[in-house]
Amino acid sequence: MIVHDLTAALGESAVSTDPDDLMDHAQDWWVLGMLRKRRGDELTLPECVVRPQTVGQVAAVLEVATAHGVPVVPFGGGSGVCGAAQAVAGAVVLDTRRFDRIVIDEQALTVRTGAGVIGSELETVLNESGLTLGHFPQSIAISTVGGWLATRSAGQKSNRYGRIDEMVIGLVVVLPDGSVIELPARPATSAGPDLTRLFLGSEGTLGVMTEATLRVRPAPSHHLSAGFRFDSFVSGLRALQALSRAGLAPAVTRLYDETDAWMSFRDHAPGGAPLIVRLEGDDVLSAESDALDSAVAAAGGALLGPTLADRWWEHRNDAVGTIRQVMFDGLLGPTAVADTMEVAVTWPVDELYHSVRDALSQQADLVGCHASHVDRQGACLYFTFAMTGSPDDSAVEERYLAAWQAGMEATVDVGGTITHHHGVGLLRTPWIDAELGTGAKLLRLVKQALDPSGIMNPGKLIG
Amino acid sequence: MIVHDLTAALGESAVSTDPDDLMDHAQDWWVLGMLRKRRGDELTLPECVVRPQTVGQVAAVLEVATAHGVPVVPFGGGSGVCGAAQAVAGAVVLDTRRFDRIVIDEQALTVRTGAGVIGSELETVLNESGLTLGHFPQSIAISTVGGWLATRSAGQKSNRYGRIDEMVIGLVVVLPDGSVIELPARPATSAGPDLTRLFLGSEGTLGVMTEATLRVRPAPSHHLSAGFRFDSFVSGLRALQALSRAGLAPAVTRLYDETDAWMSFRDHAPGGAPLIVRLEGDDVLSAESDALDSAVAAAGGALLGPTLADRWWEHRNDAVGTIRQVMFDGLLGPTAVADTMEVAVTWPVDELYHSVRDALSQQADLVGCHASHVDRQGACLYFTFAMTGSPDDSAVEERYLAAWQAGMEATVDVGGTITHHHGVGLLRTPWIDAELGTGAKLLRLVKQALDPSGIMNPGKLIG
Repeated sequence: MIVHDLTAALGESAVSTDPDDLMDHAQDWWVLGMLRKRRGDELTLPECVVRPQTVGQVAAVLEVATAHGVPVVPFGGGSGVCGAAQAVAGAVVLDTRRFDRIVIDEQALTVRTGAGVIGSELETVLNESGLTLGHFPQSIAISTVGGWLATRSAGQKSNRYGRIDEMVIGLVVVLPDGSVIELPARPATSAGPDLTRLFLGSEGTLGVMTEATLRVRPAPSHHLSAGFRFDSFVSGLRALQALSRAGLAPAVTRLYDETDAWMSFRDHAPGGAPLIVRLEGDDVLSAESDALDSAVAAAGGALLGPTLADRWWEHRNDAVGTIRQVMFDGLLGPTAVADTMEVAVTWPVDELYHSVRDALSQQADLVGCHASHVDRQGACLYFTFAMTGSPDDSAVEERYLAAWQAGMEATVDVGGTITHHHGVGLLRTPWIDAELGTGAKLLRLVKQALDPSGIMNPGKLIG
Repeated sequence: MIVHDLTAALGESAVSTDPDDLMDHAQDWWVLGMLRKRRGDELTLPECVVRPQTVGQVAAVLEVATAHGVPVVPFGGGSGVCGAAQAVAGAVVLDTRRFDRIVIDEQALTVRTGAGVIGSELETVLNESGLTLGHFPQSIAISTVGGWLATRSAGQKSNRYGRIDEMVIGLVVVLPDGSVIELPARPATSAGPDLTRLFLGSEGTLGVMTEATLRVRPAPSHHLSAGFRFDSFVSGLRALQALSRAGLAPAVTRLYDETDAWMSFRDHAPGGAPLIVRLEGDDVLSAESDALDSAVAAAGGALLGPTLADRWWEHRNDAVGTIRQVMFDGLLGPTAVADTMEVAVTWPVDELYHSVRDALSQQADLVGCHASHVDRQGACLYFTFAMTGSPDDSAVEERYLAAWQAGMEATVDVGGTITHHHGVGLLRTPWIDAELGTGAKLLRLVKQALDPSGIMNPGKLIG
């Protein structure tokens, strides 16, 4: 029995079959899982949870799992929203939290961090040295570095600091055959392909990442909030494109359509399409702020003042926001369901907006959208949709899945990407082939080469 | 016979066995090849040169080569300096130059470009639309986009615009089995690993890249040259670190040690360690320039004025600079040899400078260095070394190889990367295992999966 072999290899303190532990590692924050849990469905539980703390122990887990032909599901904070960390029947869940070491190099401005470190803990440690990673996903208080790497996470300030991919310069990963691969920290090299990229976004299907070396920087000394208002979301989108093109997009830019503004700000919503921004820098930001004001005015926006942006900043991580309010706080009644769908496309993004909103509206009662994560090439559209439930939850589940079907198809039809920063998990696997095209063949070829027994997180990402 | 099968598949106009053509595709700009050619050695010639112009034709070439067990060497501008494009005995050289299409998307600010497009042609076409790629390697007039991708090239303005890796958002590649993989253009996605990165830096060992989609941007409207002088190279390095850390590094920063300043500027060299910079932006640069002047002054630098920087700008691409002057113009006599060795490490970089300079000085008569390509994490040290020859060229060759041995070992010893932007080719394969550590195993695993017959550019990159 695998639990016996794992205990022999790792010791008793690293292997758990405690029912609460299994339950805690049965699923992540995927709404469908929460929905099923809320209505009392029996959950798929793993066989056990292992907590290795050395790469040697991770290798041992993978070797034992391979010998038994048992799947392994890597698990960090469990905050994913697409089911990538959902248990597979009989699986070993590999909890990465004991990889918790943080070592800062103040000269090289890098940090070597365990994959199990929680985001806000890492940021706190960096701040104590006057540094920042610049990575602020909404989940920062509950997600791990390993989770960020596994999903190619993008934080709220990605305009200025980039997504996690751009911060990674070194990686330690254990392959399914137990080989420990240490990709040395190389901020700038031409010596062969950047193999760290193979694992970023791999969602636990190619190996287990245990440690990464990341670029850091001095924390900015100045910040400034501002707000603007456009008559319509589409005119706001044009302004965002102009700002991005001119290199004027601040650290945070969030443009809300009228529904999302209501969901986000309720009585404080100013009507029309508000744009909130946050500038950050190492000096007074007046010149940057003036340039922004002029560019927004030229694009038809009106000045609102900083109140809305400050309000957003204060509440930005109220853990999972609208979704939580709908699912747990009864905002739309006790059986309602809400979820978010972040997609992206190159400029102009109007067509993606209209197509996905229309598609979701056929199933959902409420569909809001904001644009964020802008650059010269395009933007992310972050849809929040909610459906009021009936006493019969299975009808809600059907509508939920139909909404995803419609939204994903609309995205693929206009050439967008099916996920900007949440990943694929189980939720989006039906559209991964449409997303990757012939690239799906290449990804499967790599999967076959690295994980010939198929033990790593089966069913996720590429189905 | 393979030429017969290739002609049958591609037509006569796409297959050449013309001796001049074979000679032109026998080697790249690797100094050792030039040295051997200069002394009249018989060169290793390929069997033929093929010039496909569709992915279907590339697939046909690879299928025929696989069937015959014959190696394939992809060839763009032939301007590499490490032998990556050097012919392998009996090989088919696959010339990519017929992939010459350029399609700009003015909304998305992207360009879809054939791998065979020469860099300066691409930049000219972009400039006509008011755009720039921001990629300016010294070889721009003779190197191709495909060559840039294959070596993870970094241009002279990489401080501001990044290296080529950061510009690539889509790629078409033909695998050795003839599969055409089209990785769709995705400026921002979380849908699986970024598989374009597998081929960037692969030096033709994993497949044939035929087309890429790259980020572009509006060409900057303003630029400004400036120059400074430090008493010593090491104090200049400290200043560069401070500038980078503060986010003040301009588009171009080049700090020369005294020998390199002499090689580069002769009578115009100001003594000590000159730093030349070029600022670029979309608005007047006075604020940025003032901040730079203050930061340099605080770090102990003296103002020199723009003359030296302007001089460098004007002569920056005098094709391959000092190397050309030594090898062909007889600067150090008719049998002298010169080469460049660009390495990099995280800050502080003093130790790398001293170690490599001392190592090279044991074999070379002249060793100069400049630092460029700086960021918050580190810098590239670009050594130029030259040795006066004896009438017996084989002694020069021995000293040349001994200099590389010493310089590479010194780099590995202090934890630097053996190449910042020239790649590995044949020249650096002896040190690739030291460079990649356990990552070499992973690279070979990927190579085995994608190129099981080993036909793609054998002997290069990973030996």
